[in-house]
Amino acid sequence: MSMDPEAADLAGRIRRRWDSLTKPPGSLGRLEEMVVRYGVIRGEAMPRLERKAIYIFCGDHGVARAGVSAYPQEVTRQMVANFLRGGAAINVLCRHYGIQPIVVNAGVAGEPIEGAVDCRVGPGTADFLAGPAMTRSQAEQALEAGRSLAREAARCYDVCGLGEMGIANTTSAAALLCALSGLPAEECVGRGTGVDEAGLERKVAAVRRAMELHRPRAGDPVGVLAAVGGFEIAEMAGFILGAAPRRLPVVVDGFIGGAAALVARAIEPKTAGCLIFSHRSAERGHRRLLELLGAEPYLELGMRLGEGTGAALAIGLLEAALALYRGMATFAEAGVSGAGEGG
Amino acid sequence: MSMDPEAADLAGRIRRRWDSLTKPPGSLGRLEEMVVRYGVIRGEAMPRLERKAIYIFCGDHGVARAGVSAYPQEVTRQMVANFLRGGAAINVLCRHYGIQPIVVNAGVAGEPIEGAVDCRVGPGTADFLAGPAMTRSQAEQALEAGRSLAREAARCYDVCGLGEMGIANTTSAAALLCALSGLPAEECVGRGTGVDEAGLERKVAAVRRAMELHRPRAGDPVGVLAAVGGFEIAEMAGFILGAAPRRLPVVVDGFIGGAAALVARAIEPKTAGCLIFSHRSAERGHRRLLELLGAEPYLELGMRLGEGTGAALAIGLLEAALALYRGMATFAEAGVSGAGEGG
Repeated sequence: MSMDPEAADLAGRIRRRWDSLTKPPGSLGRLEEMVVRYGVIRGEAMPRLERKAIYIFCGDHGVARAGVSAYPQEVTRQMVANFLRGGAAINVLCRHYGIQPIVVNAGVAGEPIEGAVDCRVGPGTADFLAGPAMTRSQAEQALEAGRSLAREAARCYDVCGLGEMGIANTTSAAALLCALSGLPAEECVGRGTGVDEAGLERKVAAVRRAMELHRPRAGDPVGVLAAVGGFEIAEMAGFILGAAPRRLPVVVDGFIGGAAALVARAIEPKTAGCLIFSHRSAERGHRRLLELLGAEPYLELGMRLGEGTGAALAIGLLEAALALYRGMATFAEAGVSGAGEGG
Repeated sequence: MSMDPEAADLAGRIRRRWDSLTKPPGSLGRLEEMVVRYGVIRGEAMPRLERKAIYIFCGDHGVARAGVSAYPQEVTRQMVANFLRGGAAINVLCRHYGIQPIVVNAGVAGEPIEGAVDCRVGPGTADFLAGPAMTRSQAEQALEAGRSLAREAARCYDVCGLGEMGIANTTSAAALLCALSGLPAEECVGRGTGVDEAGLERKVAAVRRAMELHRPRAGDPVGVLAAVGGFEIAEMAGFILGAAPRRLPVVVDGFIGGAAALVARAIEPKTAGCLIFSHRSAERGHRRLLELLGAEPYLELGMRLGEGTGAALAIGLLEAALALYRGMATFAEAGVSGAGEGG
């Protein structure tokens, strides 16, 4: 979080209010820090959190044909239908927490999907084991589509979570992490939806092969995105780029969203200031990815579902933290002695 | 959790339902496990969670006069008043999650407190650096008061959290941990509400002195409780003992509630089956205490406030987990292909 003097002053004001409330200083731990972060992003000492959305970016991946997922590619489209009917995990959590789910078609194979926001860049990416996943112009188009959604979101919502669906997208995210970090492929790749040992080896081999084929340069993040990215990942990165200058807090979900954050930061380092990292997932590369981003998420529940499910839980936690911050009595109001007084 | 054949069968049924829902198997991680645990305690494959309470057990501690807290003893009574007016952290969280807070006066110094359930065993414990904290008969009276509250709670609620307030009660909890585990005092003692280095040394010295003075035997948990316990801790232990045979899930908060769980388990090992451990606090001895209990809590947010605040957050998380379990579409309902199908 960029701590310019204005932000540092605001953080100080929020911490002083926390310390005036009837509890030992700092005893609400990371809930206190979460409100400081949220308030600094919003630019307000008493921020509200009423209008909440989760954007679920969906796209297909040509690399799915390499057998890198436990599920067939058509599951992307089937799950989009499930999102639109309200039956998926993210729908349940959105209803539970009063969050608006918004399904974005960033590039699902097949016909347009009624009910999803149409931001298709193509009918799924090309197989990045044969050539680039997308053209540079497609990568730029996807980034702009995400930016545009963020501009609209900043007018409508106080906070937005990013979720995603795309069979094989953990392989794309692992390749992005590998290209942007220089870490060895085996540290970037995990089991995704649950591939077996042979599937895991195919994923590692695919990421290695992609690095050899494309020789992506970390200094050219748009080029990296074009080489091994996904349309939904590129649109999430664009969303972050569009949200940062508009004081719209973006709650990042798991490994895929983290890869999008890494891309966004590589394009524009200041974007990291608008991010709230929700949870540490069970996916192998996620811990390293979070270290690279200097992120310390709030939850660690062994989740690895995606869709924005971790982001929804973190928004729920943030609401509880804000309720405490706004609703607790101060020492003065309650007539409670402070530390070191009396006794 | 005791896994008799009936419980194992129930756990299997709950896991099979989780696996029928539109997500990769196991991908909701500990949320899935949380529902299994809750369902097994309730004895139901489709358990409900509607009626929720947090019992806040309050009591004073004679050892407070040894300078082991950052706050004067009168803060216990002031905070009880704050609970009854609705201004404390636990009140805000109870309103946020729709939980009924119930304030129990287990032994706060001074007059009876209107609005609190009167379960006073005495006007605070005696200073356990001079003699036993309470008589054996008082310890038994407090355990029975807790059991009696649990019997009533089992008729009224689906789940109960345990919270507490009592200046100096981390010192009592550390002494209980020390006596029941045999761990060195310095591993059991932490900063509580936030004592400085000198205060921490006084706490360690107090626990060491108490062990020398009382020579508590781990095999006599009621004797340990009488020697160094607190009325609110004893009533929490009694509550757990009363809840376990009645299939009432008890959500344990932090270090003090953990010490009560340790006492309850030492009295009756089967009680552990009804417990759900909410969070790992910032208090130093808590990690070791949880290891002793074989507990893996769901949240780790650096909290150290008590009152049941961690329990309230965990009840909120459990509600989200149950919403997913009950509300998600199955693969069959949604027409989504399973792992390894098609493709």
